[in-house]
Amino acid sequence: MALDTLHDLFIYELRDLYDAEQQILTGLPLMAQAAKAPQLRQVFEDHLKETRDQIERLDAIFHGIGVSFTGRSCKAMQGLLAEARDTLQEEADPEVLDAALIVEAQKIEHYEIAGYGSVRAFAQELGYKDAERLLTETLKEESAADEKLTHAAESRVNEKAATADEAKV
Amino acid sequence: MALDTLHDLFIYELRDLYDAEQQILTGLPLMAQAAKAPQLRQVFEDHLKETRDQIERLDAIFHGIGVSFTGRSCKAMQGLLAEARDTLQEEADPEVLDAALIVEAQKIEHYEIAGYGSVRAFAQELGYKDAERLLTETLKEESAADEKLTHAAESRVNEKAATADEAKV
Repeated sequence: MALDTLHDLFIYELRDLYDAEQQILTGLPLMAQAAKAPQLRQVFEDHLKETRDQIERLDAIFHGIGVSFTGRSCKAMQGLLAEARDTLQEEADPEVLDAALIVEAQKIEHYEIAGYGSVRAFAQELGYKDAERLLTETLKEESAADEKLTHAAESRVNEKAATADEAKV
Repeated sequence: MALDTLHDLFIYELRDLYDAEQQILTGLPLMAQAAKAPQLRQVFEDHLKETRDQIERLDAIFHGIGVSFTGRSCKAMQGLLAEARDTLQEEADPEVLDAALIVEAQKIEHYEIAGYGSVRAFAQELGYKDAERLLTETLKEESAADEKLTHAAESRVNEKAATADEAKV
């Protein structure tokens, strides 16, 4: 598609995110399954539900503008998920694998944060109020998911420290 | 490589970032060349210099730990840059292309922010003081680059508004 206007770019980026979310729908369950810590597995499962909501919001935006969601395959998410799958294939200690899964997931979240941050700014500039509201909801969820992953990483560190202290007693 | 310990994961992620930075070295000049706004071109050129410094810091960390930097190709960055190259191929209005370049660049920056944020946390946990200091420097640069891109996006919007006002006079 030609990028003649900001409206065109808005659609272009929304389609990229739509495809990215569809890929995440298939990638997240593998990560949830591989997680050892129940808290981390829960973060992945919760985000899977959010991903479905986010796809519905994108559907609503496409419907509102009257364009189709097809037309792009998100190569960046293909790369991000290929990397996550490679990591899952590594021979790993379960706790180290959890730490690795958090890294992969935060990279995925950050892709979405950058992508949704951009389309929300475009929606604002274009005066697309409904889209702006929906994208703000999604952006909040993505940032919260990133924070939950950081907490999961911190819990892992604290738990390890507690185990080490017990070993000393 | 086997991920038996957090040290292994630290090396694993550092190698990913090393390869990512090498890829950025070849991708960024194309983006700088394509940028219409001088301010945006400058952001890309400045970040190219920073990328070289960041690679030197990674070299210093590998040297300090006594391991080689080879062994991983960052598939995520391959995807991110493939996407950026695709966008550069689109038929686009130059100002819209600038906005698109900012989106692509922020996605790349966010990958690095997530990656460096993780390895810095690992360095801290592992007590690798020198590495932690070097990674903190890089992380600050990455966050600052992301902010500069946001400013470039805002300047584009403000300039457009000013032009529209002039047209009304």
